[in-house]
Amino acid sequence: MSIESSFIDSALRGWKSNVDRTAKLFGALTEEQLLQEVAPGKNRLIYLWGHLAASSDALFPLLGFGARLHPELDSIFISNPDKSQNTPTGAELKRIWVEVHDALWTAFSKLSPSDWLQKHAAVSEEDFRLEPHRNRFTILLGRTGHLAYHLGQAKLAQQQ
Amino acid sequence: MSIESSFIDSALRGWKSNVDRTAKLFGALTEEQLLQEVAPGKNRLIYLWGHLAASSDALFPLLGFGARLHPELDSIFISNPDKSQNTPTGAELKRIWVEVHDALWTAFSKLSPSDWLQKHAAVSEEDFRLEPHRNRFTILLGRTGHLAYHLGQAKLAQQQ
Repeated sequence: MSIESSFIDSALRGWKSNVDRTAKLFGALTEEQLLQEVAPGKNRLIYLWGHLAASSDALFPLLGFGARLHPELDSIFISNPDKSQNTPTGAELKRIWVEVHDALWTAFSKLSPSDWLQKHAAVSEEDFRLEPHRNRFTILLGRTGHLAYHLGQAKLAQQQ
Repeated sequence: MSIESSFIDSALRGWKSNVDRTAKLFGALTEEQLLQEVAPGKNRLIYLWGHLAASSDALFPLLGFGARLHPELDSIFISNPDKSQNTPTGAELKRIWVEVHDALWTAFSKLSPSDWLQKHAAVSEEDFRLEPHRNRFTILLGRTGHLAYHLGQAKLAQQQ
């Protein structure tokens, strides 16, 4: 494996590990447990899960892979707060989770090292010239951290 | 910047961002707030902070940078559970946090791309030949995720 590919391999392992841990934790909860709040007065577990699914789904256009698979998740789990919208069931989210992450994995696997360093869709050509770190690879690392951040919260609630 | 260096740059930005967010969150808490539990019956905030400081300090030998600066943190924050040991104050942890992360940053900055792909100290030469992803770079990404995981938990407690 080339040096460049080794860095991508590490990052993809980290991503996959967090995706799998998230699926395992939420997938083991009952529909009733998913409706519990992470902490008193805070978001429900179903909202955290849907928020992470919506964030992953948003990677398709952001990374130039094409249209989103589930744009309907945005108004439920990103642009509106918890308890303001009807949410899908856990069974539906489980199916969506697999669908989105399988398709992302396929798209990730096709990128070369230099593809990973191309700009993402939310930065202009001009800004990217000044800030070349605003690339696909940085997005991958950032979203991995985002998964870990909310996974830690869900773990806390699960153990209560 | 070379392709290899770009991947390291992204990873170091992710590390630094999480180190800084952690310092900011915990550094803003009073000594009294640090003694509060993250959730009922769970670890206190001071324990999470010390646990993260101890984990970072453990990177010195793990990544081949030399001896730990604060090995005494281990029995307090890693090998023993919360509330079983006397803990340093928040003021002390704040000083330790800066000391450890400044020294790590200096050590990180000296590594070349191929240095990042060398094995870490907790894997044997033999295992490393079979699993070359068990390198310094993977450790950096994993510890960044570990920071984000507990940062999410602390954020939840902070807002209560």
